[in-house]
Amino acid sequence: MADFPSHIHIHEEGPREGFQIEPGPISTDDKIRFIEALAQTGLREVQAVSFVNPQRVPSMADAETVAHRLRPFEGVQYTAVWLNLRGLERALTTPLHVPGRLQISASEPFSISNTGKNTEQTLVEQRQVIAYCLAHHIPIESAIVMTAFGCNLAGHIAPALVLQRIEQLMGVLQEHGLTLPYLRLADTVGWANPNAVTRLIGAVRERWPDLRLGLHLHDTRGTGLANAYAGLSMGVDRFDSSCAGLGGCPFAGHQGAAGNICTEDLVFMCEEMGIHTGVDLEALIACAHMAEAIVGHPLPGKLMRGGSLSRYQHPGGSHA
Amino acid sequence: MADFPSHIHIHEEGPREGFQIEPGPISTDDKIRFIEALAQTGLREVQAVSFVNPQRVPSMADAETVAHRLRPFEGVQYTAVWLNLRGLERALTTPLHVPGRLQISASEPFSISNTGKNTEQTLVEQRQVIAYCLAHHIPIESAIVMTAFGCNLAGHIAPALVLQRIEQLMGVLQEHGLTLPYLRLADTVGWANPNAVTRLIGAVRERWPDLRLGLHLHDTRGTGLANAYAGLSMGVDRFDSSCAGLGGCPFAGHQGAAGNICTEDLVFMCEEMGIHTGVDLEALIACAHMAEAIVGHPLPGKLMRGGSLSRYQHPGGSHA
Repeated sequence: MADFPSHIHIHEEGPREGFQIEPGPISTDDKIRFIEALAQTGLREVQAVSFVNPQRVPSMADAETVAHRLRPFEGVQYTAVWLNLRGLERALTTPLHVPGRLQISASEPFSISNTGKNTEQTLVEQRQVIAYCLAHHIPIESAIVMTAFGCNLAGHIAPALVLQRIEQLMGVLQEHGLTLPYLRLADTVGWANPNAVTRLIGAVRERWPDLRLGLHLHDTRGTGLANAYAGLSMGVDRFDSSCAGLGGCPFAGHQGAAGNICTEDLVFMCEEMGIHTGVDLEALIACAHMAEAIVGHPLPGKLMRGGSLSRYQHPGGSHA
Repeated sequence: MADFPSHIHIHEEGPREGFQIEPGPISTDDKIRFIEALAQTGLREVQAVSFVNPQRVPSMADAETVAHRLRPFEGVQYTAVWLNLRGLERALTTPLHVPGRLQISASEPFSISNTGKNTEQTLVEQRQVIAYCLAHHIPIESAIVMTAFGCNLAGHIAPALVLQRIEQLMGVLQEHGLTLPYLRLADTVGWANPNAVTRLIGAVRERWPDLRLGLHLHDTRGTGLANAYAGLSMGVDRFDSSCAGLGGCPFAGHQGAAGNICTEDLVFMCEEMGIHTGVDLEALIACAHMAEAIVGHPLPGKLMRGGSLSRYQHPGGSHA
């Protein structure tokens, strides 16, 4: 039985996802201009930068500068990605919203390829993150399970393996007397299909009925919004997405790695179905065009070309 | 309750949808090469050309030549679009599969804009088509309701109006003692969302439980595959789609008119969910690359870039 939410929360990841993967240099000014424009669309959470090794990801070398220069807007949190304790420490020197967050990959080969750590080593690091957060009074807000549907190195991932990873994360939290408030399931390299989403969400729900769930979906193979719809139909009300479809994973191991699902396409689909997003769709479309101008090549978003439907609503039309 | 089909039938419309809208000239040889490649992928129905006014659509001036030169492949039907009796007569001079087909637009303003005929005039023409088919022993195989979800001229279309149009078509068939075996619902200019699909399919099913239904979906606003998934979840087992996402409607009244949903993305989604399509996905991806080379610019298909998952299936992997 479909169980659609009345409204959803969107974590906009376009600036980080997109500018991280773009081959050409993006100026710090352009990054700030784009991030601040997004922060004025009604989006309440905008991921601005990642604190990763600038040798591996030169495009994020100005992460601290961007973070310090961003103007605050009421009700908007700027967030960041960090992959290890060192990244977290860097993030905490900035005014960004930096909650504690655990992360693990369902696929162990992907984990080794992406972070250099196997599952056991990852869990050791998560313990360090928890200890660090406890020592610095930083609440653990969420955890993410990457490659929750499959990856190019391990193939399809069975829901049972994802449940095992969640248990492992909950285990290290329990060691410190903590519980997990919010879990994100990530289709990191675009392996999900709508029924796999339904199946995994169902399996997690059955085991932990009160755990809040979010989806991080990539549109590598065209099923991104269908996967989001499947999540919505299961009541999922938190999504990561990228304005204009910016981005992609530079370490995903294949050329076609596409970005997150497109924010304005997601907002359009939701609002058309009566699911509120709180986002000004026209302002968001303007951001998508800005992103395209900044990167200097077409981006995959559809709505930015097709246009919203608001200008076509005729009071005397066939809408009845 | 979801009611997925075990297999679907795909009507490939890429050659007609795509080559009709491309601004540059496409050689007759290239059209034939592409159509015949599609006919060898397992697709059983490939729309090759449209018999429309060559003054309005110069790219289809070679329709008869293409139709006559196509090599037959066992189990494959080549089809065509025609919009009026004159087009039908032209189509019947070729070896193409040309069944009788009725057509109407839910939106009357769209009908006037697209064909120059209002609903009443369209019904008069449908009577002429029926009479012609009866006289020439051509079975009426299907009907299509265009703009079944909305259009830029009339706004959103309520399911009640679509039911009325279906009744009108059934009425003219009944005048000749005929019934309607198969109905296609078309989101001609990309107004549908997944819940609108579910709602309309449900309304039609409730009224005519035995009427076979198909969906013709355009991906103008990114929701195409999500809409297809909604149709699948209602048991719809016939879809129109375009290889590589070729195409679009040249008369849709706005710049962003995008093509049909992308065939290989649809095939991928279905096969990943265990819904059989009978299509060789790798051969179809090769066709998509051929289409891109022929038109000389990027096409919107995702899977052709992301790649299928078949090469990543590891017998010893996490698939369990």
